Amino acid sequence: MNGPPPNSRVTFLPTNRQVLVAAGTTIIRAAREAGLHINASCGGIGVCGKCRVRVEQGSVAGGISERLTPAEQELGIRQACTAQVSGDVTIRIENAGGLRDGRLESGVPERHRARMQAFDLGELREEGGFTCPVAKFYLELPHPDQGDRQADAGRLLRTLAEQHGERQVMISFAVLQQLPRIMREDDFRVTVTLERPVSRRFRTRLLHIQPGNRAARNYGIAVDIGTTTIYAQLIDKQSGRVLAERGDYNRQLSFGEDVISRILVAEQPGGLRLMHALAAESINGLIEAMLEEEHLDRDEITSITLAGNTTMTHLFLELEPRNIRRSPYVPVSTMFPPVRAADMDLRLSDRCMAFFYPAVSSYVGGDIVAGVMSSGMYRTDKLSLFIDIGTNAEIVVGNREWLACAACSAGPAFEGGGILHGMRAGEGAIDDFSLDPVTLEPMIMTINARPAVGICGSGLLIIIAALFECGVIDESGRYLHGLDTDRVRPGGSGWEYVLVRAEEAGIGRDIVLTEVDIDNFIRAKGAIYAGVTTLLREVGHAVGDLEQVILAGAFGSFLDLDSAMTVGLLPEIEAANCLYLGNGSLMGCRMSELSNRIRRDVARTARRMTSIELSEVPAYKDQYMASLFLPHTDGSLFPKAAERRRLTIDRRSAPFRSSRTR
Amino acid sequence: MNGPPPNSRVTFLPTNRQVLVAAGTTIIRAAREAGLHINASCGGIGVCGKCRVRVEQGSVAGGISERLTPAEQELGIRQACTAQVSGDVTIRIENAGGLRDGRLESGVPERHRARMQAFDLGELREEGGFTCPVAKFYLELPHPDQGDRQADAGRLLRTLAEQHGERQVMISFAVLQQLPRIMREDDFRVTVTLERPVSRRFRTRLLHIQPGNRAARNYGIAVDIGTTTIYAQLIDKQSGRVLAERGDYNRQLSFGEDVISRILVAEQPGGLRLMHALAAESINGLIEAMLEEEHLDRDEITSITLAGNTTMTHLFLELEPRNIRRSPYVPVSTMFPPVRAADMDLRLSDRCMAFFYPAVSSYVGGDIVAGVMSSGMYRTDKLSLFIDIGTNAEIVVGNREWLACAACSAGPAFEGGGILHGMRAGEGAIDDFSLDPVTLEPMIMTINARPAVGICGSGLLIIIAALFECGVIDESGRYLHGLDTDRVRPGGSGWEYVLVRAEEAGIGRDIVLTEVDIDNFIRAKGAIYAGVTTLLREVGHAVGDLEQVILAGAFGSFLDLDSAMTVGLLPEIEAANCLYLGNGSLMGCRMSELSNRIRRDVARTARRMTSIELSEVPAYKDQYMASLFLPHTDGSLFPKAAERRRLTIDRRSAPFRSSRTR
Repeated sequence: MNGPPPNSRVTFLPTNRQVLVAAGTTIIRAAREAGLHINASCGGIGVCGKCRVRVEQGSVAGGISERLTPAEQELGIRQACTAQVSGDVTIRIENAGGLRDGRLESGVPERHRARMQAFDLGELREEGGFTCPVAKFYLELPHPDQGDRQADAGRLLRTLAEQHGERQVMISFAVLQQLPRIMREDDFRVTVTLERPVSRRFRTRLLHIQPGNRAARNYGIAVDIGTTTIYAQLIDKQSGRVLAERGDYNRQLSFGEDVISRILVAEQPGGLRLMHALAAESINGLIEAMLEEEHLDRDEITSITLAGNTTMTHLFLELEPRNIRRSPYVPVSTMFPPVRAADMDLRLSDRCMAFFYPAVSSYVGGDIVAGVMSSGMYRTDKLSLFIDIGTNAEIVVGNREWLACAACSAGPAFEGGGILHGMRAGEGAIDDFSLDPVTLEPMIMTINARPAVGICGSGLLIIIAALFECGVIDESGRYLHGLDTDRVRPGGSGWEYVLVRAEEAGIGRDIVLTEVDIDNFIRAKGAIYAGVTTLLREVGHAVGDLEQVILAGAFGSFLDLDSAMTVGLLPEIEAANCLYLGNGSLMGCRMSELSNRIRRDVARTARRMTSIELSEVPAYKDQYMASLFLPHTDGSLFPKAAERRRLTIDRRSAPFRSSRTR
Repeated sequence: MNGPPPNSRVTFLPTNRQVLVAAGTTIIRAAREAGLHINASCGGIGVCGKCRVRVEQGSVAGGISERLTPAEQELGIRQACTAQVSGDVTIRIENAGGLRDGRLESGVPERHRARMQAFDLGELREEGGFTCPVAKFYLELPHPDQGDRQADAGRLLRTLAEQHGERQVMISFAVLQQLPRIMREDDFRVTVTLERPVSRRFRTRLLHIQPGNRAARNYGIAVDIGTTTIYAQLIDKQSGRVLAERGDYNRQLSFGEDVISRILVAEQPGGLRLMHALAAESINGLIEAMLEEEHLDRDEITSITLAGNTTMTHLFLELEPRNIRRSPYVPVSTMFPPVRAADMDLRLSDRCMAFFYPAVSSYVGGDIVAGVMSSGMYRTDKLSLFIDIGTNAEIVVGNREWLACAACSAGPAFEGGGILHGMRAGEGAIDDFSLDPVTLEPMIMTINARPAVGICGSGLLIIIAALFECGVIDESGRYLHGLDTDRVRPGGSGWEYVLVRAEEAGIGRDIVLTEVDIDNFIRAKGAIYAGVTTLLREVGHAVGDLEQVILAGAFGSFLDLDSAMTVGLLPEIEAANCLYLGNGSLMGCRMSELSNRIRRDVARTARRMTSIELSEVPAYKDQYMASLFLPHTDGSLFPKAAERRRLTIDRRSAPFRSSRTR
């Protein structure tokens, strides 16, 4: 999730634009970062040979093929799609599409990704909130003698209160049974593990006792149970640091991609048990790998915090999910008590506690609550929009005073579903794109620079935004006919744009974007935007009141903000006011592992989140209908996008249009 | 424990004394109740033939043998030892020893047993304290619909709060997993079982949910884990009634009679596990029998409360008892958290909770705390002495303001140990006795009217008191020589009194009481009395300040108060101010099963009980030395006993002494 730091400076000539990127970044990606277009129609795999650039200062790694003559190589000519940044470098873009003489700088905007929200451990420590829900304490107990005959247990509790101020502690039988032996093993020096209650009103539990001082070895695990992927982190609870991080497909995936199909499986005899076992197996695999990597004993893991959507949580906890998919959509529970991890078939010690993020409703789950926690929106004054886009988009609006949430079914377009060449964000998926506004030639980038095989969600957004901004499609998502390019053509499902020609594609046929694809995309983004506006209206606000947008989930991390605002997926807001959370669910789990105050806030926050069922708000349908345009029926909501589009289209009609080289 | 009610009136002539006894009581026992002596040297089994009486009105059952001629039988002559009361009856004692002409009425005092303390359920109910720690509630839940999408669990908790005022309830996973199915099984009508916390500060737990209304079926079990015997009661928690009661030997008994020998076994490998298993097996046997008797399903038992001394509790809970017997005598714990009964190998449902009475120290256990609870001394203004006599005597003094306790080792005399013909209170044990002050002939009664085989603790006390009161032994427990009876004679261990001659005994030889026996008894009673006075002095009181004496334990139930005061075992106090608790430990468990307020008071009471280690109080040894006399070195402490003795001895020197018939 965290790549190497962006510390190589790439200067592009003739525009003189500069960009900081990480070593290993391809020149074509760096150019795109800088807002520069380089024709590259093969997806950046070196076969089209169109993306030649010249290294003028410094050097790059790779970028050489038989398509370059030795003389060209000598001159510093490289293929931008395969040349990698290895330090500060100055690059001249030889054939920079419509960018010659730098007049079109604003035509290919920089990618505005939301800035990353990081969990500020230092702040928590300063505020005194760094008190793990499961913590260890070293104690030196007074020896029993004739003047002090207190029982072992009482002696321990008294000393805990005296030396650490921990009171109202309850000892389990498992611990009582070991107590006399362990207390005497290292001469009444012991380390105890305490589970703090989520509410100060309740009791702390003494989970474990060990001889000697082992307080420094206290580890926890954070787990985000995604429908598709499960991520886990191994946390040093002493320092707060993440020691290891792993992700793996949710093994339930072979029984269906979405929550509904999993619920259907769970409704079969033995199905719930199976879904539970598969999730547990996935998590155990991740834990195993991390423990091995860090050479940790599983007994040193004292707690694990998990979050997932309501269905994932129900399946993992073996709670009947059947009513989640049946009107009126009632989950078994939204709050989940702490439980021994081993009781949930996690291969951890008998003492290890498992905590679960509470949910709000059947379709706003613990992952969203965790995201809201890690975003900090539950304690900000700013009116914030939190949005996690997937098949279902979860939306939260509010601030420290109030929170309202809703889920809307966006359909699978953002995950590649319902799109002719749509696919998940895997190798060969087109994930970035730019369009020469003059020639309408594409710059295609694929994941891992493999031959293009399809379009992933974030690529789809960028492509449609670019096509719209360059006037290739109109407000209703129809291709304009008569444009001076053979890439726009009639196809099997209405008109289409050829992104990659068969000879350069990894699938042996043209990769195209059809009008049906665009329709599906518009319905998806329309559902989300309508969800946002409806939710805001329900609480007496409008999109213009938003002071902050927080993007969560895998899709959010690749979301180009300008594209999202161009198509009307997100309301227009300054990029500076957009935050990208990364895996907010996982971050929320980590925060809870480290801070019982946060865990307390979690419970309060989940209770505060008012769930609104969009399908029951009459205005939602109207909002949805109004959103089925690019960017929206009411164009005045997206003034900047309109301005960008006007400027871009203007370019095509400008005098130098004839100067196109290809 | 509760025999038939005493509702048959027996009138004895010529003294005209009346006594109310239960049907089935033998005439000899009824006479003894009435304070009348009948010569009966065979233990009441009909072989000596001395105990003839005449039925003058009404009738009796039995009492006829070949020793009575048909003519005698016709006249209503019966053997008092085998004739049983079957209704109101008038009996003439034909040969009432020294009682002729009624002059010696005060010579053979009535048995003053302490009056029975009964647990007043009505009072508890009136005070609103009748709220079981584990209670059932019937709920009619609102159906979920579009206007109310609350999760099943939230709906349940909300309704519990609305319909029963139960808040802060936590649902276990086991319940969550069943919740949706059970809620819908009987159309959202359910019965829930709640475990209330001992402190209002903590959370109530929802243990179980059932479809429909089953709130009326809620049963509990109370168990007293004695070192020798385990008693259990089956309780209807709806009515508070005891449905069944059983007792059985503690199966640990085959590994030693006292706590120290059990600890020794537990210190061997596997020994603790074995001790636990034997106790569990004993308890399971009792539960099984009671459930069968009442045709109850084990699933209907929702809780069980247990009390025992600290060692018994440790063994049952598999807590290492080794430090209980090692200075400074530190138990593992004095407080024991609630646990699932099944986790302690009790064959009860997975939901059934087990609660344990807290202890005070290694030698003042949960049984004593339970006794203090059932005695009510924790909430009385009266300065009370609570005493449970066994091998170890536990003593508690105090009132609602303060409580101090101590244990003292009395030795096994009260359980028959160290006494030549001592035995437990089993069949054939001499358990009651009177002595004709003139002839020094005995009236012997044995348990179940079997041939005498030995002397049990309560019998021993009565015999020694009678011998002392009649001047057969002196203050130091030595037999007076030269008395006009062949029953006092030199024997193998100093002088002795022949209680039963070989030909009438069940063991084929004389049953005697030796001076060594008396010595052992005096040491035992001295240790206890010294314990009482020392404990009182430690808290600034003297025996004269006592307003109430509460006797607990099996021995207490048979303790003749006058005898106990005659020998200086108990301080002199009016019989009216003595309470007999019966099995106070069992009663305390039952009270806790029925009232969470009492359970709360238990925790407070246990904490309030200040434990004093007698061996560390310098004055204890002096007190002990002073107590090694009958009744005490300081005779002024026992003025009434002295008066009784003076009167009795006087009788022997009176003119009618010559009128002795045998």
